Amino acid sequence: MRILIAIAFICIHCLSFGQVKRIEPLHWWVGMNNPKVQLLVYGNNLKNKTVSIAYPGVSLVKQSAVDNANYLFLDLEIAPTAKAGSLKIIFSEAGKKDLVQRYDLKARDASKRKLQGVTSADFIYLIMPDRFANGDPSNDRIAGMADQSLNRDSMYYRHGGDLQGITQQLDYLQELGVTALWLNPVLTNDQPVTSYHGYANTESYFVDPRLGGNEAYRALIEACHQRGIKMVQDLVHNHFGTEHFTVKDMPMKDWVHQWDSFTKTNYREQVHMDPYAAKADLDIMRNGWFDRHMPDMNQHNPYVKNYITQSHIWWIEEMGIDGFRLDTYAYNDLDFMAEWGKAIEAEYPKMTYFGETWVHGMPNQAYFTQGNKINQQRETHLQGVTDFQAYWAIIEALNGKFGWMDGVVRLYNTFASDFMYEDAYNNVVFLDNHDISRFLSVVGEDINKYKSGLAWLFTTRGIPQLYYGTEILMKNFASPDGLVREDFPGGWAKDKVNKFTAAGRSEKENEAFTYVKTLANYRKQNPVLQDGKMLQFIPEDGIYVYFRYNDQKRVMVIMNSKNEAVKIDSKRYQEGIGTASKARNIISGETLATLQTIEVPASSTYIFELIP
Amino acid sequence: MRILIAIAFICIHCLSFGQVKRIEPLHWWVGMNNPKVQLLVYGNNLKNKTVSIAYPGVSLVKQSAVDNANYLFLDLEIAPTAKAGSLKIIFSEAGKKDLVQRYDLKARDASKRKLQGVTSADFIYLIMPDRFANGDPSNDRIAGMADQSLNRDSMYYRHGGDLQGITQQLDYLQELGVTALWLNPVLTNDQPVTSYHGYANTESYFVDPRLGGNEAYRALIEACHQRGIKMVQDLVHNHFGTEHFTVKDMPMKDWVHQWDSFTKTNYREQVHMDPYAAKADLDIMRNGWFDRHMPDMNQHNPYVKNYITQSHIWWIEEMGIDGFRLDTYAYNDLDFMAEWGKAIEAEYPKMTYFGETWVHGMPNQAYFTQGNKINQQRETHLQGVTDFQAYWAIIEALNGKFGWMDGVVRLYNTFASDFMYEDAYNNVVFLDNHDISRFLSVVGEDINKYKSGLAWLFTTRGIPQLYYGTEILMKNFASPDGLVREDFPGGWAKDKVNKFTAAGRSEKENEAFTYVKTLANYRKQNPVLQDGKMLQFIPEDGIYVYFRYNDQKRVMVIMNSKNEAVKIDSKRYQEGIGTASKARNIISGETLATLQTIEVPASSTYIFELIP
Repeated sequence: MRILIAIAFICIHCLSFGQVKRIEPLHWWVGMNNPKVQLLVYGNNLKNKTVSIAYPGVSLVKQSAVDNANYLFLDLEIAPTAKAGSLKIIFSEAGKKDLVQRYDLKARDASKRKLQGVTSADFIYLIMPDRFANGDPSNDRIAGMADQSLNRDSMYYRHGGDLQGITQQLDYLQELGVTALWLNPVLTNDQPVTSYHGYANTESYFVDPRLGGNEAYRALIEACHQRGIKMVQDLVHNHFGTEHFTVKDMPMKDWVHQWDSFTKTNYREQVHMDPYAAKADLDIMRNGWFDRHMPDMNQHNPYVKNYITQSHIWWIEEMGIDGFRLDTYAYNDLDFMAEWGKAIEAEYPKMTYFGETWVHGMPNQAYFTQGNKINQQRETHLQGVTDFQAYWAIIEALNGKFGWMDGVVRLYNTFASDFMYEDAYNNVVFLDNHDISRFLSVVGEDINKYKSGLAWLFTTRGIPQLYYGTEILMKNFASPDGLVREDFPGGWAKDKVNKFTAAGRSEKENEAFTYVKTLANYRKQNPVLQDGKMLQFIPEDGIYVYFRYNDQKRVMVIMNSKNEAVKIDSKRYQEGIGTASKARNIISGETLATLQTIEVPASSTYIFELIP
Repeated sequence: MRILIAIAFICIHCLSFGQVKRIEPLHWWVGMNNPKVQLLVYGNNLKNKTVSIAYPGVSLVKQSAVDNANYLFLDLEIAPTAKAGSLKIIFSEAGKKDLVQRYDLKARDASKRKLQGVTSADFIYLIMPDRFANGDPSNDRIAGMADQSLNRDSMYYRHGGDLQGITQQLDYLQELGVTALWLNPVLTNDQPVTSYHGYANTESYFVDPRLGGNEAYRALIEACHQRGIKMVQDLVHNHFGTEHFTVKDMPMKDWVHQWDSFTKTNYREQVHMDPYAAKADLDIMRNGWFDRHMPDMNQHNPYVKNYITQSHIWWIEEMGIDGFRLDTYAYNDLDFMAEWGKAIEAEYPKMTYFGETWVHGMPNQAYFTQGNKINQQRETHLQGVTDFQAYWAIIEALNGKFGWMDGVVRLYNTFASDFMYEDAYNNVVFLDNHDISRFLSVVGEDINKYKSGLAWLFTTRGIPQLYYGTEILMKNFASPDGLVREDFPGGWAKDKVNKFTAAGRSEKENEAFTYVKTLANYRKQNPVLQDGKMLQFIPEDGIYVYFRYNDQKRVMVIMNSKNEAVKIDSKRYQEGIGTASKARNIISGETLATLQTIEVPASSTYIFELIP
């Protein structure tokens, strides 16, 4: 029953209610660097159709019937001379009437091709769209969709947040200093339960109608771009949802990885690199399912590869996406991911993307990145990663006890290990995200540690990423109750307080908000914190000192991880201080008249702009 | 006073009591691959001497006077045609009588050039020579030497052990299955305190007379070679002792690294690789002193480089050394160490050596090895390392609690990280050594864990190394009292028990001895455990299973880290088991009639040779 409802819903998007139900990509463009595109045609019993296309500059190179008679794959080649327009695809079969399907080839929108990518000059703000702001209450529940839950008291039900809600809060985000949004996946997730998180997409070309659909997404991106804010789309190559139409009615048996009985991945990235790994373990890692409702895509299947890659190119070209975040990176077939990266870069040389590498150990994390200095046998074409190693290190630095390898030394060691990367500045650094406990709770709600961590986030190398609400002291632990995904207070019309406004925030929340805002805007205005070089000193007695510098500026960061104030003798740091004799605290604005000794309070990080 | 005595002693070795006190290397050879040798001449006021040599095939390319008038450095070039013999070095000065010094060029001994090196086919036994066996009580105390302590009750005094003592125990070592000895440094350490450990050499060409001098060393090596036992010499490039004659009367100011006030190294290997390292930190790491009595050699000084490198070549050529262990590797100048490695390999292509890399983290350890897959900017020419990462991992495997990254998973992860090495089989694996607590104590004197660790040591990849006495259950902790350097019971004539004999050992000690002997001899006879490939499975529920295999044999190792017996279903391990249907326990000799389920007792590791 559920399935029938879902199909009925899917058909809202169908190109035709006749024998051809849909063609994907929904449309394509003339003038792409890659002249090839493979159309997936889904309908009823198409196997014996002969397809013809008569359109100047477009040739049908190949038509492929597959196991399932309901699918045809059409390989088109579009000459550089082809003009935009609507072409006819004619499906013929002896003794039957021709079916004619229109397919649009659009002109490329030059404005969308000026992708600059997301770089270490940016500040990414991560939003779970269902939980941030409800701009359009009319789409909270959509008739015909499988998940009809709507209850803000449960972390596992839908809450009604949407893209229009985000668009309405761009003033807030801009004031904070945000330059890029990363939204948890926005594609339709027509799964019966916990559809809110978005990681089990059932469509590849449609934004979830409960988030506002494609048009709300387009409106949000355009509004962002007008403000100089970029959009990072969250992609899941590894799996679809079980309710994806290509999974429910699979083109061929090996569209997804099938097992005799349900087989979960082993979640061990090590098998990719282990020279002694059992093939059985590697198979389970790559081909086991991430979860019961997340069928593992067969990334050796050329049809699957085309289908996935083309959809991502489609989103860039259609919406002007600036960057991608690649979910569950290590669970994919790495050869496919490299091929995918190459295809993206071939079409959009400035496009950027970073992989979620929730892996253990610095070499394991670096292994997945492009041009790294470990993994010489494989060019991954992965520009950056979510830097979990730096995350664990900052938590240890703030909460741990100083020791030979402990406390703040962990942070120092983590960056010392950057020698393994081609460019560690592409890594995304963070203090929390939708999967882990909120930072404020992790540091025991200690406001000094909270500020210390943020000071680090905005001054270390990499691309800082903040999880929504961290700037207004939202807290809670990831397990057991998922409360890290609570709603942003004020995002719903009925909310008693509106923390998007200064008036709605408590004094402490305003202090935190202003702290983040000051850091983010200082960073935004000072390239030295974006791409400036880094210089770090071996921590001593709980004190970690590092510098960012370029030809114009020098910034000195002193992290005091001790729970008492310290006075540091700056002589040891001469190499970083250079000829400076004074410094300005970038938070308080105060000027230090001398640098000989510098005092830093307990559990605090001070940031000084050095003055020659 | 002390210094005068020491000089008096040194002069025992001098070539002349006249104006030229010594020439080093003590002699050289014709027919070396490298035709060059640089002689250090030490005497009284040699600066204004003009040197001449008249010997067929030998040319004096250059004579160098240096800061200190007591030194001359002579660069000789020895043609391939030069014959062995004694040449005259004539030191002339206007108005003074010529000094004539004989210098021997010897013929190379072909038998000593058949170096096979120390490989993963070997089993290295580490001995602290002062603490193993006293073969010659007459040399326990040497008149004129600075350290006149002799007291077996103190761990910091000399005990009287010597090389003759080791020679007398070769039957014992051979029975145990040892194929290579590594002795803590044997060079003269004429330091006033704690001279017994040998890491502050005051001579570069003489074995300590308290160990029996060069002749006892030669006798030991010859006796070893007759039994197929190899000799690993422990080298210290980084520092000499403060009482080394070249330190007390330095050739030039920059012979050692000098500091305004005493400056210790910071002991942080990270600065070598950290892309953000402060130069100040790197300088202190490389050029700071390892300890007050260990002056840091200036390895940028070409005279120092020659002096050190030539002495090592001398020991190989003179004694037929089979391998080197390089102390405090990370404290050296890495460019010099690479140059040194190249020079050794150029002269002896089969010579092997491994560096002590007491460093933290797998990439940091791999960084130092040759051809590694991380450190592409530097070719280190270091073949292998002391595998501290594997050491910490086996201790965690045996003592830790199984968890996602803990317990036996640490061991699995360590080997998964071998992708960073060119050849991890060159690494030396160990359970204890002279610097760390004895293994039996570390595992809480649990005999099952002790056996489990040993089973691992002899079946994992790499070159197993055992510390003397571990096979007879010697125990104790490294700190605070240094009791890990206790004497081997029976090595001294007055000892009440002699554990070199079965009769002198308790039942438990014999059980341990036999266990090690069985493992070592099985390994010796079965190449599968030497250079066989490795295959490992992700640990589950505290069980870690790995295989060693080659075309002839398969060995299955099951480590049960739980404190209860387990039955494992072997289906998961099919890839390692192959077509085998039975197996022989290599310790008990028992045969398993079926492999379907295999039972392993609590905290135990079983080793099965698979039978097709």
